[in-house]
Amino acid sequence: MENGYSIGIVGATGAVGQELIHLLYERGFPIRELRLLASARSKGKTITYKEHSWTVEEATPEAFDGMDIALFSAGAGITKSLAPEVARRGCVVVDNSSAFRMDDDVPLVIPEINPEAAKEHQGIIANPNCSTIVSLMALYPLHREFGLKRFFASTYQAVSGTGAAAISELENQVKALVNGQPVVKEVYPHQIAFNVLPHVDVFLENGYTKEEMKMQNEGRKIMSLPDVKVSCTCVRVPVYRAHSVSIQAEFEKPVDVAVAKAVVDAFPGSELCDDVERLCYPMPIDYSGKVNCGVGRIRKDTAFDNGLSLWVSGDQLWKGAALNAVQIAELLHERGWVGVSA
Amino acid sequence: MENGYSIGIVGATGAVGQELIHLLYERGFPIRELRLLASARSKGKTITYKEHSWTVEEATPEAFDGMDIALFSAGAGITKSLAPEVARRGCVVVDNSSAFRMDDDVPLVIPEINPEAAKEHQGIIANPNCSTIVSLMALYPLHREFGLKRFFASTYQAVSGTGAAAISELENQVKALVNGQPVVKEVYPHQIAFNVLPHVDVFLENGYTKEEMKMQNEGRKIMSLPDVKVSCTCVRVPVYRAHSVSIQAEFEKPVDVAVAKAVVDAFPGSELCDDVERLCYPMPIDYSGKVNCGVGRIRKDTAFDNGLSLWVSGDQLWKGAALNAVQIAELLHERGWVGVSA
Repeated sequence: MENGYSIGIVGATGAVGQELIHLLYERGFPIRELRLLASARSKGKTITYKEHSWTVEEATPEAFDGMDIALFSAGAGITKSLAPEVARRGCVVVDNSSAFRMDDDVPLVIPEINPEAAKEHQGIIANPNCSTIVSLMALYPLHREFGLKRFFASTYQAVSGTGAAAISELENQVKALVNGQPVVKEVYPHQIAFNVLPHVDVFLENGYTKEEMKMQNEGRKIMSLPDVKVSCTCVRVPVYRAHSVSIQAEFEKPVDVAVAKAVVDAFPGSELCDDVERLCYPMPIDYSGKVNCGVGRIRKDTAFDNGLSLWVSGDQLWKGAALNAVQIAELLHERGWVGVSA
Repeated sequence: MENGYSIGIVGATGAVGQELIHLLYERGFPIRELRLLASARSKGKTITYKEHSWTVEEATPEAFDGMDIALFSAGAGITKSLAPEVARRGCVVVDNSSAFRMDDDVPLVIPEINPEAAKEHQGIIANPNCSTIVSLMALYPLHREFGLKRFFASTYQAVSGTGAAAISELENQVKALVNGQPVVKEVYPHQIAFNVLPHVDVFLENGYTKEEMKMQNEGRKIMSLPDVKVSCTCVRVPVYRAHSVSIQAEFEKPVDVAVAKAVVDAFPGSELCDDVERLCYPMPIDYSGKVNCGVGRIRKDTAFDNGLSLWVSGDQLWKGAALNAVQIAELLHERGWVGVSA
């Protein structure tokens, strides 16, 4: 791989796609060629990043011939049909959608938590749900120390999780309200400015949303804890970019707050942001554009015997999506788990 | 009380004070005279409401001579010294601050939940914390049906809870950001616009905030459940007026979602707002200026055997403060638990 990899980004025009381009370059990923692909609708569009410029290609299966790694950030529907075709061509797909996350033969990877799982890939590796990643970056080091048994999560999710159109919608609604104009709702069913919506993703038979069940289902798979009990409520808040999660967790062993703080801070990808005397705690505006997730408000839980309450914020577009995907590509490169063409 | 009561409002210039005036008139409370009182600083100010107009008087103990009920909405410090003086003069104090809430000889009352407690008043009745009221309006009917054992709460609290200056601060910060101006922080230590702060009220030794411990301590007192286990994380969100709470609750008995919905809807002061197929769930913008608290997202909890997850929104300035205080005054009137002068 002297000359680097041939990399493709599918969905390059979206909010996550833009961050994928940025992170691949800024982190110095060995790129031989980078190609941007999207649906037929975006074919021919020009995308620029610093001195680079691309014409968007249509994401047909043939377009991936000879490519090493394709970072997918498209809808689950299109991904479901396209990704296996791409993998069959010898190109490893790192997929940001929910299409394959729970498939038994698809690794679901957070590189700091379960890197070894990526080794078993059969051409597709799934990038987990954003709220799940942010939560697990706090919970996993605590699990290693105390043994995770059960946790409750209530999320405070930024509009970036819905995509670029939602970022504009929040901006436009706020401007309209400030100027006494009527509010236009196109992305969300209800006003998001100065409001919170206990609704992320679609509702399921059991009354939970798909997003809420991801916390349980993906959390169990990533941490190899098939029996951990999880209850989650996902809420959209009028914040642009980083997600936050309020967590109450119960452990097998007695907990120690000082040890909890130490193991969180020592965990790669997480940092302790917890000095309440100085009013220091993680906030989404401080964790937007940050590589690390911030963990704070760590305290003995008042309702569990062996419990901790905590709060975590992390950049939804980065660790919650694009950064984790690029880290998976880096992992494949470092461990030699990707075939190199030429 | 043919001619009604002599009523005083302490802290009439604040956000809650304004709502107290509004609700006393709109709900037709029998008023003989209404007097507005505040600190020396506000003495002489003119306050108007519809055809009414008042000159603010200084809240000296003597000013309460001959008054029947004083609705206090002032800081805990001034209340601590003034309220007992007022009560000694035969005027019943309904206090919105935290000054007396946990005193054994001061009833802490939500009229729909523990009206009888008000009977034992010795001149002071405390109005509970806003998040606690909103949460209990959902939890208490469920407790009566299934027996509450433990609950976790994560709040989404509006800036109205901090007061009129905080409402202006959110407005001004948003305007500044929309216009590319620098953000001014005076009320909150961090930017509240497009951000969330896991910090309401001051931090205590155990790592919780005072606000978070109110949920446990006041909840236990109001529901007469000294052993109920409570864990709460309080978060300020960029919403103007109504508070929302994500709750996971464990009960003694097996739960039934249909029964849970029915008992919540039948409970006075609460209403079911729970039709996820039609994307109907409680939101703060819909529950601002509403008498009832809205309860929705009721579902079997995935992490508790006998558990329910739910979501509640309620007007912080009304049921969370002014309305509950006026309802306490109404209770005193209806039951004859207040001395009537002349």
